[in-house]
Amino acid sequence: MIPNIYTIPLIQLASGDRLSLQVYRFVGAKSGKKVYLQANLHGAEIAGNAVIYQLIEFLKTLQVTQLVGEVWLVPVCNPLGVNQRSHRFASGRYCVYEGKDWNRIFWDYEKSQDDLEEFAKTQINLDIDTIRINYSNKIINHFATLTEKIHSPSSVPFTELFRYRLQSLSIDADYVIDLHTSTDRGLDYLYYFSSRELSAQYFLLDYGILLDDYDGDAFDEAFIKPWLALENTLRQLGREITFDIEAWTLELGSGMQMTPQSVEKGVQGVKNYLLHKGVLALKTKAIAHEMTFRSKSQVTKYYAPVGGMVQARVPLGSEVEAGEKLYEILMFNKTGELPSLIDICAEKDGLVYDVATNHAVNEGEYVLAVM
Amino acid sequence: MIPNIYTIPLIQLASGDRLSLQVYRFVGAKSGKKVYLQANLHGAEIAGNAVIYQLIEFLKTLQVTQLVGEVWLVPVCNPLGVNQRSHRFASGRYCVYEGKDWNRIFWDYEKSQDDLEEFAKTQINLDIDTIRINYSNKIINHFATLTEKIHSPSSVPFTELFRYRLQSLSIDADYVIDLHTSTDRGLDYLYYFSSRELSAQYFLLDYGILLDDYDGDAFDEAFIKPWLALENTLRQLGREITFDIEAWTLELGSGMQMTPQSVEKGVQGVKNYLLHKGVLALKTKAIAHEMTFRSKSQVTKYYAPVGGMVQARVPLGSEVEAGEKLYEILMFNKTGELPSLIDICAEKDGLVYDVATNHAVNEGEYVLAVM
Amino acid sequence: MIPNIYTIPLIQLASGDRLSLQVYRFVGAKSGKKVYLQANLHGAEIAGNAVIYQLIEFLKTLQVTQLVGEVWLVPVCNPLGVNQRSHRFASGRYCVYEGKDWNRIFWDYEKSQDDLEEFAKTQINLDIDTIRINYSNKIINHFATLTEKIHSPSSVPFTELFRYRLQSLSIDADYVIDLHTSTDRGLDYLYYFSSRELSAQYFLLDYGILLDDYDGDAFDEAFIKPWLALENTLRQLGREITFDIEAWTLELGSGMQMTPQSVEKGVQGVKNYLLHKGVLALKTKAIAHEMTFRSKSQVTKYYAPVGGMVQARVPLGSEVEAGEKLYEILMFNKTGELPSLIDICAEKDGLVYDVATNHAVNEGEYVLAVM
Amino acid sequence: MIPNIYTIPLIQLASGDRLSLQVYRFVGAKSGKKVYLQANLHGAEIAGNAVIYQLIEFLKTLQVTQLVGEVWLVPVCNPLGVNQRSHRFASGRYCVYEGKDWNRIFWDYEKSQDDLEEFAKTQINLDIDTIRINYSNKIINHFATLTEKIHSPSSVPFTELFRYRLQSLSIDADYVIDLHTSTDRGLDYLYYFSSRELSAQYFLLDYGILLDDYDGDAFDEAFIKPWLALENTLRQLGREITFDIEAWTLELGSGMQMTPQSVEKGVQGVKNYLLHKGVLALKTKAIAHEMTFRSKSQVTKYYAPVGGMVQARVPLGSEVEAGEKLYEILMFNKTGELPSLIDICAEKDGLVYDVATNHAVNEGEYVLAVM
Repeated sequence: MIPNIYTIPLIQLASGDRLSLQVYRFVGAKSGKKVYLQANLHGAEIAGNAVIYQLIEFLKTLQVTQLVGEVWLVPVCNPLGVNQRSHRFASGRYCVYEGKDWNRIFWDYEKSQDDLEEFAKTQINLDIDTIRINYSNKIINHFATLTEKIHSPSSVPFTELFRYRLQSLSIDADYVIDLHTSTDRGLDYLYYFSSRELSAQYFLLDYGILLDDYDGDAFDEAFIKPWLALENTLRQLGREITFDIEAWTLELGSGMQMTPQSVEKGVQGVKNYLLHKGVLALKTKAIAHEMTFRSKSQVTKYYAPVGGMVQARVPLGSEVEAGEKLYEILMFNKTGELPSLIDICAEKDGLVYDVATNHAVNEGEYVLAVM
Repeated sequence: MIPNIYTIPLIQLASGDRLSLQVYRFVGAKSGKKVYLQANLHGAEIAGNAVIYQLIEFLKTLQVTQLVGEVWLVPVCNPLGVNQRSHRFASGRYCVYEGKDWNRIFWDYEKSQDDLEEFAKTQINLDIDTIRINYSNKIINHFATLTEKIHSPSSVPFTELFRYRLQSLSIDADYVIDLHTSTDRGLDYLYYFSSRELSAQYFLLDYGILLDDYDGDAFDEAFIKPWLALENTLRQLGREITFDIEAWTLELGSGMQMTPQSVEKGVQGVKNYLLHKGVLALKTKAIAHEMTFRSKSQVTKYYAPVGGMVQARVPLGSEVEAGEKLYEILMFNKTGELPSLIDICAEKDGLVYDVATNHAVNEGEYVLAVM
Repeated sequence: MIPNIYTIPLIQLASGDRLSLQVYRFVGAKSGKKVYLQANLHGAEIAGNAVIYQLIEFLKTLQVTQLVGEVWLVPVCNPLGVNQRSHRFASGRYCVYEGKDWNRIFWDYEKSQDDLEEFAKTQINLDIDTIRINYSNKIINHFATLTEKIHSPSSVPFTELFRYRLQSLSIDADYVIDLHTSTDRGLDYLYYFSSRELSAQYFLLDYGILLDDYDGDAFDEAFIKPWLALENTLRQLGREITFDIEAWTLELGSGMQMTPQSVEKGVQGVKNYLLHKGVLALKTKAIAHEMTFRSKSQVTKYYAPVGGMVQARVPLGSEVEAGEKLYEILMFNKTGELPSLIDICAEKDGLVYDVATNHAVNEGEYVLAVM
Repeated sequence: MIPNIYTIPLIQLASGDRLSLQVYRFVGAKSGKKVYLQANLHGAEIAGNAVIYQLIEFLKTLQVTQLVGEVWLVPVCNPLGVNQRSHRFASGRYCVYEGKDWNRIFWDYEKSQDDLEEFAKTQINLDIDTIRINYSNKIINHFATLTEKIHSPSSVPFTELFRYRLQSLSIDADYVIDLHTSTDRGLDYLYYFSSRELSAQYFLLDYGILLDDYDGDAFDEAFIKPWLALENTLRQLGREITFDIEAWTLELGSGMQMTPQSVEKGVQGVKNYLLHKGVLALKTKAIAHEMTFRSKSQVTKYYAPVGGMVQARVPLGSEVEAGEKLYEILMFNKTGELPSLIDICAEKDGLVYDVATNHAVNEGEYVLAVM
């Protein structure tokens, strides 16, 4: 089975050169769900590219009858982020021109809609599929109006153009999977949304963090929030519905790397999820994997209380207890004193799931995170 | 009259060196209003430093009896922003570590308070001064709780430390004046808030933009929004009050420069405003200057619709009409074509009040703004 | 007359996108000299792109009989430099990955050759055209060996690939013209090499700086130094020859801009030079313009002796005398003192030909230059 | 034994804040050699700070009689480099203002001296200690003249100020030890100079690279090159002398980290070297460690021949054979093709001693190095 490949112009640079997106689209014999996967939205988070490469290799081996619906794959989905450098490093985390996080720029229909309750009332007695279609059309129609501003003489800042291009590909999807990694060094886990715990377990990862506390305008949020809002409003009106619409952010290990184990977990997880959703029509059966769930609001990030050099840090993956030493800072000074060591201890119990790559810290810089 | 000078440690760097804030505080013989001025929150916006220098020189010539209340002056208030470089340029607009605009990080009491209506009801029959004190205490007490997190082992990201230090100096002020300039090339104007048009005219500038559309967490907003919210709530409860609490952002010309005319306007404007407010007890009488007022929501920013080089741009300060050519882009390509020129025309009438310093544009980069 | 247009792949980015060079080549009916022009080697120095655009427009109006030889034009010749950003600014002066000035990376045959005297002795009695051909072949053959390393598994750093691509286009030219501007704000002038004063005057500029003190591996140097070395060696052997080989760097005003007057000077200068060289076969006669010549070794650059903000700087283009005040620094401190002003005076007489765009200076940052 | 601690102002920033150097100087009861150690000249290379901290702790435990001569220790010796950030990373490898490698800026007396042969002739019959003193005075006197330019109105760029401050501390040392790490991920090894193999072995490291091919103006080079030049000239005049003057650059593991094993090796190595040199007067005996020596000119660095993502790279520390696969690149494209894998094989046998942290590569970016 061979994918359709679409090359989509993304941006014309000052030099006249153009950067593009490229979509690999596998279409099954039978119509069904649309799955949208992208990788490398943050420039340093490259592991998902290897996941997508291996999924392409895998999907190529299938018969069209073994795929139900469509799978869209977009590796290296943010060329400006991927190619950016500062000496040999590159987080590509934010647009250096606009000073904005590449994953906090997306169009969130929930924020622009003001008639949700009104709409919900008109749908309250319809069947779930009809509501689904009606709301989807509403979102897509509103999204389409964004082109007006893009094509006006004043146009839009690049981040708005970029989000439009990416969301054009995914706005009508059923399942959106955004492949990330830590900026620094991290475990493998996923971010999920309210009421999607059951599905989460098919990604075969050990940890899941519930996005109960929004960052705002992230890719996954922007996709699913309007649906969560509708579910919520219908619930308040007495109708309990959960749409089969899902958004996932998978965190596959460390930044600037494609750790083979993390890539392998990503590949296996996505395949198993597609199996579970019936997108892959294979003999194998999908497996649910027991997960530890936490909430984003309960995560504690540790920032350096003084400037200096971090040493004796607990290893990534450690379970720590409140009061236990997490790391020490070798602190220098310019006031004629000897250098000294400062201990920093855990505020509460938890799992160290992410640690900084850079062990030199100005005051207030990130050291590690505990879930 | 000699100011008190306070040097306040701001951040310890990884190298052990420390950067500081320094406050120049002039205290009059009679107590009265507290005026807080700062400059250079964005690293490239340096003109306000010269304004503060000239105000210090001026205040030094006064007798203590000529000052009623206090004036706090904080030049170069963001050392990390001021000292940052990328080759010879430096916008210092955002924290390169956190990727956040230095003027979108401030603590906004309005966002954390959930009992405003309840509080307003308890104040509805009190006199304005008492309400003023009660609410001010409420804000200050809440602000004080931020130190807890700062001093916990997990501490806070530097932007939260920084905002705490700056807002500590200004939280109890009556008038807050934040001296900015364009990032690029700009006219002299100010940003003001709802119901402050009359005071605005004492800054002697030609243009004022009403912040009817918040950027979110800017220094001026964070200071005044809780008060505007209280005014609004009291109004809804039937009590019409405007507190003598004001926040201003003055835009004094172009970035990376201290244009003498813009500096002079800043100095004259602030003096006249202080005179108007009775902080300066001089023989001279304050003058109101006729201003053109616009709303932020009506401003149009133009972004390049293609990549290339901007030329033939209308000059800064031009009045343009809808359909008139604003600029052209010399567009190159890498597809074997000759270079070409693209015209961009005004969408509507207005004043070109800000233009980009850099005339090379990737698609979606800023070119100019019309109010 | 229509140019041949060649699009040459330059670099494949991590995202799989490619950036290219594009050459516009006009070939006259009669063979003759090869003129090579490029613009925008430093990313912020864009004025030369407008010069090249206008030259293309002009050359298109000519008959093939009006051109003798060929003119190669390469605008936006350094896409990585042109497209780089740090917030809204971009000097694009150095490769951010390798930390190298884009104009100090070129292959200089003089440095690798060790048999110059030997070679010169074999040529001493030949006619100038034969020597010219022999030496040119020697250079080109040596240059061709660079591909071996490029195509080896270990390959080369990008700057070496880039220089190879650009020098491939120009290595066999007769006249090389590299269009630059100031990084900051500058007058219009050119850099020239030993014994080329007469030709220099046909560029119609007021000032010329002799490169008696090499920066090392600049584009113009790398092109002409081997020829200067041969001229010098032949001279020592008793043969006085000046090859009709010339390299020029034109500095056309300020960075990040395409100042119309500077662009116009560039266009007129290049046309007049081509006329003088017989490359343009028109009725008009080339004019020599009286120039002031200085040596690079006599230029004085002023660096800030303290940190602070530059004000009261003499205007660009001022003639100053030793002892005259050049600028002052408004110096702040964090030691509890009042801010103060520091005067900086000229060390010697001269013309202020370049001034910094950014008026905020850390100690040791550039302020202005006097020739 | 307590060190003298000197705080030396290094630079005044635009904000008025100052950054400093701080020297820890231990002076023994008996006079003798001067040892100079510094760490963190490149901003990301922090391991040496922990080495210096542990050496300070160790030296504090000694009696003054156990130290012969003096040991000067300068941790975090480049505050601008140490504190620089680009999101969470920071190579601090080059001065972002001047675009210069912080370790290619030093004053090299060999380059400015033009009377070496003449001087050598006057010394040819003197004893080694007298020559040593005479030449040292010559160097120091010449170095002292640099202050003139620094204190002139035109002053010097910051890199020249910085080098002056650091070299002031070390110019009269006998042994200079510069503690570095890889920018990326590296083994532990040292760089040494001609005729210093025997001493090298006392640092207890497994690998040494002879600097037979100068980078130019590095700290170690600038210190020792004048002495090597004198040794060489005397040798040509028939006098064989090796001065007891040594310069070392220790590479202690990976960038942005203080790997405990690398730090420990650094501490043990320096102690053993000081013992060997008689600077530490302890009971223990210095041990020579067998080393593998290579030449810098034989090192092969591999750069990506295409853009993409590096995977399946041989581990750091691997011995590879010519023809063996070193790594593969997962290459994407924007031309409608499937992604593909490219293998890169070793050109020759050797040890993989350094590998890139970032596995995303634009064409021409660094991947690994083989010695």
